[in-house]
Amino acid sequence: MCNITPYIQKLNSLTFPDMYLSDFLLTWEKTDQELQAIFTVADALRHLREHNAATQVFQSGLAISNFRDNSTRTRFSYTSAANMLGLTVADLDEGKSQIAHGETVRETANMVSFMADVIGIRDDMYIGKGNAYMREVAKSVQEGYDEGVLEQRPTLVNLQCDIDHPTQSMADMLHIIHHFGGLENLKGKKLAMTWAYSPSYGKPLSVPQGVIGLMTRFGMEVTLAHPEGYEVMSEVEQVATANAAQSGGKFTKTNCMKEAFQNADIVYPKSWAPFAAMEQRTDLYGKGDMAGINALEQDLLAQNARHKDWECTEEMMALTKGGEALYMHCLPADITGVSCKEGEVAASVFDRYRVPLYQEAGYKPYIIAAMMLMARCENPQQVLEQFASKGMQRWMR
Amino acid sequence: MCNITPYIQKLNSLTFPDMYLSDFLLTWEKTDQELQAIFTVADALRHLREHNAATQVFQSGLAISNFRDNSTRTRFSYTSAANMLGLTVADLDEGKSQIAHGETVRETANMVSFMADVIGIRDDMYIGKGNAYMREVAKSVQEGYDEGVLEQRPTLVNLQCDIDHPTQSMADMLHIIHHFGGLENLKGKKLAMTWAYSPSYGKPLSVPQGVIGLMTRFGMEVTLAHPEGYEVMSEVEQVATANAAQSGGKFTKTNCMKEAFQNADIVYPKSWAPFAAMEQRTDLYGKGDMAGINALEQDLLAQNARHKDWECTEEMMALTKGGEALYMHCLPADITGVSCKEGEVAASVFDRYRVPLYQEAGYKPYIIAAMMLMARCENPQQVLEQFASKGMQRWMR
Amino acid sequence: MCNITPYIQKLNSLTFPDMYLSDFLLTWEKTDQELQAIFTVADALRHLREHNAATQVFQSGLAISNFRDNSTRTRFSYTSAANMLGLTVADLDEGKSQIAHGETVRETANMVSFMADVIGIRDDMYIGKGNAYMREVAKSVQEGYDEGVLEQRPTLVNLQCDIDHPTQSMADMLHIIHHFGGLENLKGKKLAMTWAYSPSYGKPLSVPQGVIGLMTRFGMEVTLAHPEGYEVMSEVEQVATANAAQSGGKFTKTNCMKEAFQNADIVYPKSWAPFAAMEQRTDLYGKGDMAGINALEQDLLAQNARHKDWECTEEMMALTKGGEALYMHCLPADITGVSCKEGEVAASVFDRYRVPLYQEAGYKPYIIAAMMLMARCENPQQVLEQFASKGMQRWMR
Repeated sequence: MCNITPYIQKLNSLTFPDMYLSDFLLTWEKTDQELQAIFTVADALRHLREHNAATQVFQSGLAISNFRDNSTRTRFSYTSAANMLGLTVADLDEGKSQIAHGETVRETANMVSFMADVIGIRDDMYIGKGNAYMREVAKSVQEGYDEGVLEQRPTLVNLQCDIDHPTQSMADMLHIIHHFGGLENLKGKKLAMTWAYSPSYGKPLSVPQGVIGLMTRFGMEVTLAHPEGYEVMSEVEQVATANAAQSGGKFTKTNCMKEAFQNADIVYPKSWAPFAAMEQRTDLYGKGDMAGINALEQDLLAQNARHKDWECTEEMMALTKGGEALYMHCLPADITGVSCKEGEVAASVFDRYRVPLYQEAGYKPYIIAAMMLMARCENPQQVLEQFASKGMQRWMR
Repeated sequence: MCNITPYIQKLNSLTFPDMYLSDFLLTWEKTDQELQAIFTVADALRHLREHNAATQVFQSGLAISNFRDNSTRTRFSYTSAANMLGLTVADLDEGKSQIAHGETVRETANMVSFMADVIGIRDDMYIGKGNAYMREVAKSVQEGYDEGVLEQRPTLVNLQCDIDHPTQSMADMLHIIHHFGGLENLKGKKLAMTWAYSPSYGKPLSVPQGVIGLMTRFGMEVTLAHPEGYEVMSEVEQVATANAAQSGGKFTKTNCMKEAFQNADIVYPKSWAPFAAMEQRTDLYGKGDMAGINALEQDLLAQNARHKDWECTEEMMALTKGGEALYMHCLPADITGVSCKEGEVAASVFDRYRVPLYQEAGYKPYIIAAMMLMARCENPQQVLEQFASKGMQRWMR
Repeated sequence: MCNITPYIQKLNSLTFPDMYLSDFLLTWEKTDQELQAIFTVADALRHLREHNAATQVFQSGLAISNFRDNSTRTRFSYTSAANMLGLTVADLDEGKSQIAHGETVRETANMVSFMADVIGIRDDMYIGKGNAYMREVAKSVQEGYDEGVLEQRPTLVNLQCDIDHPTQSMADMLHIIHHFGGLENLKGKKLAMTWAYSPSYGKPLSVPQGVIGLMTRFGMEVTLAHPEGYEVMSEVEQVATANAAQSGGKFTKTNCMKEAFQNADIVYPKSWAPFAAMEQRTDLYGKGDMAGINALEQDLLAQNARHKDWECTEEMMALTKGGEALYMHCLPADITGVSCKEGEVAASVFDRYRVPLYQEAGYKPYIIAAMMLMARCENPQQVLEQFASKGMQRWMR
């Protein structure tokens, strides 16, 4: 039978008054207890769904999506989350709209939000742009609400920006929590967030940044490893350093993949583009310098190609704690001999971890739903309690 | 608390037996009382939503959308309206369909309508085509229903055609009604529907036509102003003239923007293309004469450029009643120095009216929902009463 | 009043324990009783909808759609079916996803399915690919479910592949059943599935194959007619032959259209591409040989043009039983003088059968909904009974 009580009790022990009607843009803007509340609500929603309980917070309402870059996993996770809470996704496809007219962000944000409860945005292509765009949208709908234009102030959810990818890192974290049997078991666990070779170029920095910005908060010992020249945003490194100091964990850096893997409990090898190059690309786009962009792309691919040894092979895995570290990835991975000739990870390693990798991805719909629920319901305990007690089935199986 | 009684009483005082199962294609095909009923239902739905009452007319059903031109505002308004009544939008994207085969309108209209309760169409690109297409769809689904092909006869809603833009003009009108404190206060109010300069070409005529075709009905004194050569459809001018005669208002024309603004209570300055040029363009498209179309476009841009003084500046606004006329626009506006170098309106004017402009746009979802509800519910009073009395919450906040 | 009892009684007389949680990929993988159960549930759902009963099997859940080829009818039928059962369609648009990265089918299938109850796929372009792709998806989600990645195992529905088009042939069959007043009246009825001329090339084989693979099962005498060189897959012909032997019907072939029409009760004249040519095209695509593909296309069009006399004219119809055979088509048809200069059917024949053709298409949403319901509900009788007895209205008319 469905037993929601442990989740309610956990929530009762946490403090999160500022979550109601708030946005979720960066994990480091939230308190530890707020994050724990999200993990708890995510688990509670999964428990309810596993016990076939309907979980409609809304009888009607829209969840706007605005994907400025391709997406499969996050798009379906967002759609799933909206659907399980009773919202309908309405996609703001900028190609089919009148936005090309030179319409302001403020105007568009209000025009699509008259009946919107949530706005999810992916904007990860240009350094200094994505998160800034989300904040401009958030400010616009706040003004719209304050001015009486909007009847409700929609909640923003960051579906990946230039700085953070919180729905990914929170899903990753929930996977780690379940793998190690609870948040309380993470203290001292070693996590290696390392760069890995990929034949494609320009992968976003938001995943490594999101991971070091979040995983340093609960006492883990996080190492960021990458070849020279593949630095991430220094602001996020500062966040990681401060987090580690506060949580009793560690945050260290190295240019040696082996060093990071040595005795690690968790490894997260994944390609990304150098921050400095991404800044340069943003400038070139701003100037419309396509020749410059093409030249930069060739340089980056050549630079990548000097680091093909940054691959998560069986030899590398053997260096980890008991040879059995938890291998993680946000997917899709560049798998050597499968999706490319030479890539981020050996096929045998990927295959051995395929099921946990898919389970890792499976937390994302619940994480997003929990972010939505926490932002839209003042008393999440009461709402979860009603789902459990009403006995409304999700599916007449 | 939610008090639906005034709306019910208002509806009880109105006569609208022909609205049930009817289409909404042109405002001037509806009686004054029918339009008032729509305004009343729109206000009632907003009142219910503001009091967190669920408003599902439908447990399931589709609202087909068919956008043959770009749209943001109307697309999201239509989606919002469908969603608040319980319908799911299914977009007929003619690019993804088999319609290129040379399939007839009659066939497509029936094929998408087996479970459709509403069909919303935007088709505003070619003179003589858009409204005709809607009528062909309406006739097709009526036949389908009569022949036993369709179990229900879906209702058509005109989301902008070559003649009228009724969801826009009705939302505009509801904005005016609320601004002046009621329909009964509009008699004698001066409204200036004027052309304005834009650096883009070929903007539809449906907004100015929709405005003069509707606003002349309730005793207002409407002036249509534009440079010579920017005439609108003469049939709609005749409608406006007849409306004014019947409502005790006025309909006048001028080629002087200042004359129109003089002492106006409401100004609606907005660019559009000359009707004759749009007819010419339609012919050129029919012949596939792309060189002719490009030449026409250059001519029209040059013609527009001779009228850059048709801008809604502070000086122009100062001419209006007390310098405080209500400035209106269907959005997005071409704002001088913001979305273009020289445009329809000065930035300072637009900024001062930004909030009312957004509120004006905010009526559209409710107007569309009211059009849907009035066409699908034989007894709207009873339906609204049930929403109010059942106490089903839209949102478990 | 709504009377669901006859449908329940019919279902009680049938055996279908393997339908629950099963896929629907080929009609010949299902027993006769299973197919009859689907027809019965389709009729029951229509009866419920005609009596304004809500039919939500699901309070939330996704129906994934994956259209690898254009679609109007099937797309809207699938959307309608999902909507009437309470599911929300989420379209896997491979262009907007990250699948280009070289992601495996197994991974994508799991990533979109965390909250999916149904997956509908159209993949009809390449011989040997479409059905195989569906089976790979089915295997992938089965593994995902077995491994604990997915909480539910989504059901696959074949929305047209290279071999079969079961939602079409089942809708066609239900049309025939109603036309002749019951399945029991079909024994000995003559059906002519014939090729017909079309000016377009490369039409899928799945419709003729689906028809001969299904219609031979209930005692009908099915003739497949086409010019030499337009053979269909031999495996499906073997299925048809075996079916006819078992059902007491007949399956014959001819290269003469007239012979097939002679005394036929039902005619289904429709263009398709030769199987051998489609195999060749698949190979050419595999090699990226675009010149070869263009040459093949020209050959095929020239080959088609030699058979313009394969048209369903009034003269041909006069050969049928009493000159009044039921004319069928999956639509859209190539109508001579309407959608093309010379085509599959004379305009006067098409017009005379337009209403029954549209009704034929109208069964598809119910057939798909029945396939979904039978696969997701262990006890369909109980579910239908609840819809009838709960008295929840679909529409507050």
